[in-house]
Amino acid sequence: MKKNRQEAKRIARLRRIMRERGIDTLLVTQRENVRYLTGFTGSAGSLLMGTSGRTVLITDFRYKEQAKAETSGTRLLIQKKDHVSTIKAAADLFGTDILWFDESSMTLDRVRALRKQKLRLRGMKDPVAEIRREKDAVELTLIRRAIRRAEEAFRELRPRIRAGTTEQELGLRLEMLIREKGSRRAAFDIIVASGRNGAMPHASVSGRRLRAGDLVTFDFGAEADGYYSDITRTVCVGRPNARQREIHGLVLSAQQNAIHAVRPGIACVDIDRAARATIEKAGRGKQFGHATGHGIGLMVHEAPTIAALSKGDIREGMVFTVEPGVYIPGWGGVRIEDMVLVTDNGHRVLTSLPREL
Amino acid sequence: MKKNRQEAKRIARLRRIMRERGIDTLLVTQRENVRYLTGFTGSAGSLLMGTSGRTVLITDFRYKEQAKAETSGTRLLIQKKDHVSTIKAAADLFGTDILWFDESSMTLDRVRALRKQKLRLRGMKDPVAEIRREKDAVELTLIRRAIRRAEEAFRELRPRIRAGTTEQELGLRLEMLIREKGSRRAAFDIIVASGRNGAMPHASVSGRRLRAGDLVTFDFGAEADGYYSDITRTVCVGRPNARQREIHGLVLSAQQNAIHAVRPGIACVDIDRAARATIEKAGRGKQFGHATGHGIGLMVHEAPTIAALSKGDIREGMVFTVEPGVYIPGWGGVRIEDMVLVTDNGHRVLTSLPREL
Repeated sequence: MKKNRQEAKRIARLRRIMRERGIDTLLVTQRENVRYLTGFTGSAGSLLMGTSGRTVLITDFRYKEQAKAETSGTRLLIQKKDHVSTIKAAADLFGTDILWFDESSMTLDRVRALRKQKLRLRGMKDPVAEIRREKDAVELTLIRRAIRRAEEAFRELRPRIRAGTTEQELGLRLEMLIREKGSRRAAFDIIVASGRNGAMPHASVSGRRLRAGDLVTFDFGAEADGYYSDITRTVCVGRPNARQREIHGLVLSAQQNAIHAVRPGIACVDIDRAARATIEKAGRGKQFGHATGHGIGLMVHEAPTIAALSKGDIREGMVFTVEPGVYIPGWGGVRIEDMVLVTDNGHRVLTSLPREL
Repeated sequence: MKKNRQEAKRIARLRRIMRERGIDTLLVTQRENVRYLTGFTGSAGSLLMGTSGRTVLITDFRYKEQAKAETSGTRLLIQKKDHVSTIKAAADLFGTDILWFDESSMTLDRVRALRKQKLRLRGMKDPVAEIRREKDAVELTLIRRAIRRAEEAFRELRPRIRAGTTEQELGLRLEMLIREKGSRRAAFDIIVASGRNGAMPHASVSGRRLRAGDLVTFDFGAEADGYYSDITRTVCVGRPNARQREIHGLVLSAQQNAIHAVRPGIACVDIDRAARATIEKAGRGKQFGHATGHGIGLMVHEAPTIAALSKGDIREGMVFTVEPGVYIPGWGGVRIEDMVLVTDNGHRVLTSLPREL
């Protein structure tokens, strides 16, 4: 199966990292990591990986048939009593009691339960997230598909964006269109924020009816085989006035400045800076209080984070959003969000919906 | 505001528990817990509560306006640098460096980051989950609304369940109907499992077309102001044969036996046992490998768990699902799921869709 070939490559890459760092056995618990490495799409499962070449997927009765159908080259262990004692049984198969795990996805009560199984646990930064930051060809195909679905849906929605329609109606219609394009779900609860509601960056939807002259911010995304897209457009119902054009122009130039900065080797903070400096120069720094962007793939928010406090550099193969905004309480707001792929010598903007008001 | 009055009552109840257990300051991080105690619906926020009477909600720029609109009686702190340093600033307002927290929702890297802020952290079992297990009147109204939306949607779907339609079409249509009834989202990815796919308890949907004589399992739920419903029905396309009637009858009697056992004071395991014993007596114990039910409210899966290894007893005010099933690889499966409220002397079944094939 082509799909499992790709996953075998990812596992091989992870094993190289494990060997470099002296990690014999890794416990992978985050759902998206398990999917990335095995193809298993169930909601409950852990993966135990040894540098020796063995992998064991632990899941429960509900997913037995599904796990058999979706994976290959991975031994399947169906939990008998509970999940932690089955992890212990898997560790016994590896002949070890030392398990490395990702500190960012393991809760304290789970660590305690595993320790009660006489397992010695070693926390670390997630090595799978490290690989997942740089998308492979299969992933890029799915991300592009998720983008196409979202963009086609928004294009079909456009004629319905007019005075008298409620945010709720538009949000629901956009979600239906995204689903009809083939997505299993929308990437997240769609935001439709009109008029003053636009001042809330994460506004969701309300029963408010659009009025002529309103700015309306749509933040939405689609799904394709587990991969997500995330796009924001702010449009005007009718003709925009001078202030609306000014704020929109400012956000757009901040966004374009940030996008132009994207290339391998640049620091994440410098991309954030490019957007933020533009907005600060216009005296609106306090009206842009969130991060400039975030990685996206199997999760809508994943590494890297493009923010004022980010650490680390941009690498080829990363896919992330660039989404500055300006929010003015009592007036409204503007946000423009695109998805960018880092190429060998620069970047490619993956999203293509028109950005004008 | 009526809504915030209810939340003030919940906070008062939590404070009594904190005082009983000698907890001065509690850090609440789980999103649903924050919502339950303050009314704040944003996706990023922590709450710091003192027994003294003070509460501080910590969130970021994106949610500033929303938090102001949704909460009352809670001081708002918008994070400046990062979330953990703002939690430290909030602890300073309380004049303490000892914070108690819920071990089941705190990851290890977050604990480390808080310790770097010179906070002394004390893990405990989530005391908010304890209160949330027993639903108050406001919650029951919303749960009933979420049930009504799901049931009305399924009733409207019924005429479309016929040979030639795909699982995907039915799943999408059911989701649209649920959204049209007013839900912000479906409770979870809807399952439509027809024919052999019914052998996978968590099958999702496929492109398979229904055929005359198929059993089809629908597992779906709706939302109302953050509360969820969760219902499963297995129906037959056309006339069921003898084996289908037999398996369906077995699952239904297991389910009814479990429901009849529900009353305050009974152990959770005994409800599970009532369902499991019925299926075991028919020689099909191995074909029912999952839990009998789970609590539901602000989360689709929450306390209590009704399973073979559950601890604890049933109390008045709990709402949970009862959902045994029988799954036969190569043939298919049957699951029937209803939602039950524990009353002062027994139970009330909250769901009312017909259960016949």
